[in-house]
Amino acid sequence: MDMQHSPIAAPADDGALYLRIAHGLAEAIRRGGLARGQRLPSVRETARQHGVAISTAVQAYHWLEDARLIEARPRSGFFVTTRPVARALPEPTIARATRRAHMVSVDVLGRRLLAQPPEGDGAVISFSSGTPGASMLDHDRVRRSLVRAVQRHRDLLCHYPEPDGHIEARRALARYALHLGCSLDPERITITAGCMEAISLCLRAATQPGDVVAIESPTHYSFLELLQSLHLRALEIPTHPRHGLSLDALQLALDTQPVKAVLVVPTLSNPLGSCMPVSERRRLAQMAARHGIAVIEDAVYNDLAFHDEFRRTVKSFDDGSGHVMLCDSFTKTVAPGLRLGWVEAGRWTEPLRRLKNVQGAQTAVVELAVADLISQAGHTAAMRQLRNATAVRLELARGLIAEHFPAGTRVSDPPGGMLLWVELPRGADAQALQQAAQAEGILVAPGSLFSAHARFKGCLRIGIGADWGEGHPAALRRVGELASALLK
Amino acid sequence: MDMQHSPIAAPADDGALYLRIAHGLAEAIRRGGLARGQRLPSVRETARQHGVAISTAVQAYHWLEDARLIEARPRSGFFVTTRPVARALPEPTIARATRRAHMVSVDVLGRRLLAQPPEGDGAVISFSSGTPGASMLDHDRVRRSLVRAVQRHRDLLCHYPEPDGHIEARRALARYALHLGCSLDPERITITAGCMEAISLCLRAATQPGDVVAIESPTHYSFLELLQSLHLRALEIPTHPRHGLSLDALQLALDTQPVKAVLVVPTLSNPLGSCMPVSERRRLAQMAARHGIAVIEDAVYNDLAFHDEFRRTVKSFDDGSGHVMLCDSFTKTVAPGLRLGWVEAGRWTEPLRRLKNVQGAQTAVVELAVADLISQAGHTAAMRQLRNATAVRLELARGLIAEHFPAGTRVSDPPGGMLLWVELPRGADAQALQQAAQAEGILVAPGSLFSAHARFKGCLRIGIGADWGEGHPAALRRVGELASALLK
Repeated sequence: MDMQHSPIAAPADDGALYLRIAHGLAEAIRRGGLARGQRLPSVRETARQHGVAISTAVQAYHWLEDARLIEARPRSGFFVTTRPVARALPEPTIARATRRAHMVSVDVLGRRLLAQPPEGDGAVISFSSGTPGASMLDHDRVRRSLVRAVQRHRDLLCHYPEPDGHIEARRALARYALHLGCSLDPERITITAGCMEAISLCLRAATQPGDVVAIESPTHYSFLELLQSLHLRALEIPTHPRHGLSLDALQLALDTQPVKAVLVVPTLSNPLGSCMPVSERRRLAQMAARHGIAVIEDAVYNDLAFHDEFRRTVKSFDDGSGHVMLCDSFTKTVAPGLRLGWVEAGRWTEPLRRLKNVQGAQTAVVELAVADLISQAGHTAAMRQLRNATAVRLELARGLIAEHFPAGTRVSDPPGGMLLWVELPRGADAQALQQAAQAEGILVAPGSLFSAHARFKGCLRIGIGADWGEGHPAALRRVGELASALLK
Repeated sequence: MDMQHSPIAAPADDGALYLRIAHGLAEAIRRGGLARGQRLPSVRETARQHGVAISTAVQAYHWLEDARLIEARPRSGFFVTTRPVARALPEPTIARATRRAHMVSVDVLGRRLLAQPPEGDGAVISFSSGTPGASMLDHDRVRRSLVRAVQRHRDLLCHYPEPDGHIEARRALARYALHLGCSLDPERITITAGCMEAISLCLRAATQPGDVVAIESPTHYSFLELLQSLHLRALEIPTHPRHGLSLDALQLALDTQPVKAVLVVPTLSNPLGSCMPVSERRRLAQMAARHGIAVIEDAVYNDLAFHDEFRRTVKSFDDGSGHVMLCDSFTKTVAPGLRLGWVEAGRWTEPLRRLKNVQGAQTAVVELAVADLISQAGHTAAMRQLRNATAVRLELARGLIAEHFPAGTRVSDPPGGMLLWVELPRGADAQALQQAAQAEGILVAPGSLFSAHARFKGCLRIGIGADWGEGHPAALRRVGELASALLK
């Protein structure tokens, strides 16, 4: 895929002037500063305002047109698109509760479907990943930090690393956690090989094989794999497309079943993109303490939430009883290629560290590079830029779905992140659709992958974070056409 | 600890001339090229021979004297030490078989005892680690490789890594495995976060909670922790101090018990330092195929074996049935600070990869740095140098033990590696000795840590790989004195 010509690639280094202008206008449209139907300043005016050549302003307007955020009206100028088609789409329905916890047995094909296609495999157009593509990130910033860490801390290369992570890196993580509403002691943070390792360790520290773990429904496919590999039973709790895990349903489960832990993504859950209201976060922390269960909180998407309130973690409401275990990484926001996660495991810190110490520590220079990256003054701006890029991409994808998917399709409207949850009209078979699309080189994830009971057979998860080439919009339209054809 | 003045620090970069000369002579003594009691060339002659100043040759001779490899006789010159005290020490006895497999429950204190003390903690003198100290390694070589990998492969930083490891790194590992007697397909190698993660994945792929795993006795403390964390039962198989795991005892176990896997370190086992004869390696591979069990082979010390034959793995005798799972890393030989291991899991490759893929991949640039390091022309020389350094250190430590430990002490004579197994005279309490030593700031590992049944109460493991300061020889002497005092 030729990223140079992608109409919606975000600027990796903020270098292209026209993209900076286009992103600013896109952000204004998204926030309502520029209303639907409103006329944009003329190209000449915009060029003067930003001190750029007229051709640059034209380029910015073309970009916004490609992204369907504005439209040209002959002899009248440019206007914010009037049809807010995407917003008009109904949101997906909430699943019913399941009665019993089950041992998990997931289809091994899921892993292959969800894997990112090999870089440069132009034959495949992927909507199956939940991770940002390289063009959304700044690899020069990452490279500089890593080289600096190696040069500065070369003495660490021939020493066995501190088992819980380099203390300087843990201090940086504790400072970072203030953005998540948490005041953490660096000494009680444990660095891991990634967020999934952190979650795996939490589950092993807080449960025994055969125990029941409550999960969101639908939930992250990797969580199902993890529960299976640890011989744990999954109890699927209904999860609202907008508000996340139903705490009423969870309460019922806690009252009737031997639940040992709850695994939850309160902010931008995968695949729904739901965000638990702040009051519910407080309530969940209280429920955990009252019932003596572990809440394992995955915060990998928190930095991608459009609204500050959703960056606040359930952990921030832990009243000191230590029942919330906070897991996080920077795979989704800084550098998927630097494998590093961390966990504050509350009352399970000691047993978790015993498990972790057997596995061995991380490469300390990588820890220090990540610490450097998240501590830089520019990091907040980088996160804002990444959120803007995803906002535009979400808007575009929702618009394409509204236009090209069959009538009766529902789609989530997540406040951030890189995932859309699409519920096809009644009678649709998402697995057949996935296969039809795959036959044309287009990858989407069928909903059944996100349940231990193969529910959500009429749903799709559409990942919009990967690097989009010119073919992506057409491919998404094609998925809609295939869906319509299959329904006939 | 001031490494500048350590009498036995090996040259990290081959920089100090006198150390190069001293190591050459030490190697000649060890191999018998210079016999016990033989007179060395005069200082003047040695200086001329190497083209160095006389003061440099004097420095080399002093170093050898400090290491007790040579002795000065007034007015006669220098002679190879006549008393081969260390060699005269009897080797430790072999443990009797245990009857039943047990769930493992190890003392959490073990982990703390065996941890490397924080760098620069001069208050503590450690003989508790099995990893080489920084002065035995070449951190400049490691740093250059890592920086080069980051610069060359910067595009990898913002891509999610290939789940089984970068293919270039896997190719380098396959080439490296030729030294272990194995012809491996890079596509079937899986890169892990370290050798312990590789072993953990092997155990999980080949067993279920509650299964019986045969282990060496005594065995690596971390293996016991690992079995405990995975809810596996350990069956301790008698292990000969020189020849390793008793295959006759293992055969008896396979005939009578539901053993699912054997976890073994055929080369320089931890803590005994035993090496399984090549014929026994072949027999073990055949037993595994016949009984349909997994042999999980840990090869981390293979590069440290003095004799080439011991670098050949059990895996090399796998006749294609794929019952041997080979695990390895470079923590003990290249850079403890670059966390990377690998596994060729034979018939369990697919289930192992499913487990690994949930945990997430490694940092690809670290994989490529390690691949670069083990592929360099100078790597063979670096390994030879490391073996020479450990040979001298082992010789010195055995000499000190022979001289200063109570009569009746037995000690292993391992053909390489960084561990000595000391069996104190009957009636000695190694735990009391460990505590008495710790009270004086000297760390040794009591034998009971290396058994799931708290056997080996009269034994100690002495690690000799850490950076030795001036105080180390005196500290080892002191441990001997404390042992004598406790016996009274």
